[in-house]
Amino acid sequence: MKIITFLTDFDMKDGYVAQMKGVVSSIVDSKFVDITHDITPHDVREGAFILQSSVSYFPVGTVHIAVVDPGVGTARRGIIVATRSQILIGPDNGLLMPAAHSLGDFIVYEITNDKYMLNSISNTFHGRDIFSPVAAHIINGILFEEIGSRIYNFVDLNFGKGKISDSVAAGKIIYIDRFGNIVTNIEGNFLREILDYGTKIAVFIGDKQQDITFAKSYNFVKKGHILVTLNSNNLIEIAVNQGNAARKLAANLDDDVKVIFK
Amino acid sequence: MKIITFLTDFDMKDGYVAQMKGVVSSIVDSKFVDITHDITPHDVREGAFILQSSVSYFPVGTVHIAVVDPGVGTARRGIIVATRSQILIGPDNGLLMPAAHSLGDFIVYEITNDKYMLNSISNTFHGRDIFSPVAAHIINGILFEEIGSRIYNFVDLNFGKGKISDSVAAGKIIYIDRFGNIVTNIEGNFLREILDYGTKIAVFIGDKQQDITFAKSYNFVKKGHILVTLNSNNLIEIAVNQGNAARKLAANLDDDVKVIFK
Amino acid sequence: MKIITFLTDFDMKDGYVAQMKGVVSSIVDSKFVDITHDITPHDVREGAFILQSSVSYFPVGTVHIAVVDPGVGTARRGIIVATRSQILIGPDNGLLMPAAHSLGDFIVYEITNDKYMLNSISNTFHGRDIFSPVAAHIINGILFEEIGSRIYNFVDLNFGKGKISDSVAAGKIIYIDRFGNIVTNIEGNFLREILDYGTKIAVFIGDKQQDITFAKSYNFVKKGHILVTLNSNNLIEIAVNQGNAARKLAANLDDDVKVIFK
Repeated sequence: MKIITFLTDFDMKDGYVAQMKGVVSSIVDSKFVDITHDITPHDVREGAFILQSSVSYFPVGTVHIAVVDPGVGTARRGIIVATRSQILIGPDNGLLMPAAHSLGDFIVYEITNDKYMLNSISNTFHGRDIFSPVAAHIINGILFEEIGSRIYNFVDLNFGKGKISDSVAAGKIIYIDRFGNIVTNIEGNFLREILDYGTKIAVFIGDKQQDITFAKSYNFVKKGHILVTLNSNNLIEIAVNQGNAARKLAANLDDDVKVIFK
Repeated sequence: MKIITFLTDFDMKDGYVAQMKGVVSSIVDSKFVDITHDITPHDVREGAFILQSSVSYFPVGTVHIAVVDPGVGTARRGIIVATRSQILIGPDNGLLMPAAHSLGDFIVYEITNDKYMLNSISNTFHGRDIFSPVAAHIINGILFEEIGSRIYNFVDLNFGKGKISDSVAAGKIIYIDRFGNIVTNIEGNFLREILDYGTKIAVFIGDKQQDITFAKSYNFVKKGHILVTLNSNNLIEIAVNQGNAARKLAANLDDDVKVIFK
Repeated sequence: MKIITFLTDFDMKDGYVAQMKGVVSSIVDSKFVDITHDITPHDVREGAFILQSSVSYFPVGTVHIAVVDPGVGTARRGIIVATRSQILIGPDNGLLMPAAHSLGDFIVYEITNDKYMLNSISNTFHGRDIFSPVAAHIINGILFEEIGSRIYNFVDLNFGKGKISDSVAAGKIIYIDRFGNIVTNIEGNFLREILDYGTKIAVFIGDKQQDITFAKSYNFVKKGHILVTLNSNNLIEIAVNQGNAARKLAANLDDDVKVIFK
């Protein structure tokens, strides 16, 4: 059975997510997976990060509906992003783009055919009135070309990728999770080959330097101690064992990070 | 596959919702959709509002289990509300009634046949021990008449409907969502035909007057500014773009609202 | 369709739970039920309590994945617990054991065959990289013996059972739910046969005594009043009608509880 995932900033409280699932269920039988509904309201970037982190684990044919949509009801467009393996549906505000890039080549369609929307379109809830029925019709086999027209000037978003030289890896903080773990955009697999776990390395966040233990995982340092590790997506992460690294280091999103590994 | 929805004030933390789903799954294979489990504990009215907002989006045959049940274990009855299209199951305390009214004609049965309940009935969790197995047996085709007897003296609940005259629409606040958006019981479709977006209209909340812009959606006013709009169910809503209207206007549930549109 | 349940301390925010479901869905079509993702981070005991409370309500063949795993990435093992009716998968830290004991006889396997794990195993997220694919392969019929080897020295956990004599039942607080209801490890069915509802009984929490009404359920005492009742699992529970008993009585996990019923 085909999967539809949902990512929003709606929270579950008000029943909005259920309304989307009701609309889909009225058109097609599919399997629902919630990615999250706890995105900070209107935080497109946070939603984009979590969507990107999750999509690669889903099977071919999965349709992802993502709605973090401060511009709903304005002229911002609704889009379908068709990658080789999965389909992304949501507002044209960058939200879908990091996930799209991570899945390889893609093409983008603007959603225009109101035959595939609900009869009455609210100004405030396109997640239910447009994106959900469009997702259901796509599962049903309706062609993208039937739903809209290809566009090239979509709003792009890219977290960038840290740069690695002989002795320094440089990037930035792209996400801080609810435990306060600091995620950078630096892919850190190479560290495993050149460093022993337990080695101290110099880490700059902004211009503040810390000497931090490179650890296999949180529990290899004492409770409350800082560590550098590779997160579950192989990105360099700075954490505190059973503590909050972002608070301890006064670190913020977009702060520059440098790791001196030699 | 038939859908069973769940709405409770249980929160997800303690696993109570999962116990309900386990019970249903032990009787019938169906598809689960959570409406919400974040109703303010014991707030029957809030649960009733969110249930009513959601049911119309679900397909024919959907069974909704709703449990906001401060009277569990007392003499309050458990009921099945059979509408023409969907079925509602829960306590007889008004929770199901606004949804039932919104779906048209309905009849109400008291749940009495313990053959369709769990063998051991707790005094504190009828959601699991009575409502869930009853829902499952209904999906399995057991007749309402087999499960209980028709009753006429159920506890009713009705949010009322705002009144619209030549120049004034008058109603009250029936819901405040987690963003602080203020929802009234005044259906506002008519405003679209007589007012241009951008017009200022006088709005009274209690006896305090504000002149507020009638806007297509939140983003048509500046961040932090107030607007009057139609919510996703076409009800007149007062909101602040990326802010909290209820706090800004010191508005409370049940406050009278008057909109002077001429 | 076979059910896989998920219990974690991940919260829904970061999309980790969705990644697990994506991994499972890439291997087998099954039905997902969330038990909870709101376990207090790293609180193995709380997770164990909620898992134990829930499993008995699920049908034969259900596979439960539970991940409260402060030792992830260390030498702690991953295990499969095969009971006669259901299967439990997670870290070897006690988390699965109260549930296993409650389901009767069981045997334990260490997960060792990386053929049934993801190709790349992170050090921080075995829930996704090991437990989820193993659960999916078990649903697909792979034998436990193929996935790992039987072990006997697993980490056990047992909440104990209150002792009941002629006039006193003695046990301890094993759980406090989010409403502040105090759950003991004393099975209280016998109270129904020897006490009338409404009787006052002496309850000691630690060395502080209270005379508390034995009530059928919360609403049989006035709002704000204390009661002793049987919870939905027939355990003796001390609660306050529409209030917080743990706060009112300054009660903590593991406090001794004595109930003088004669």
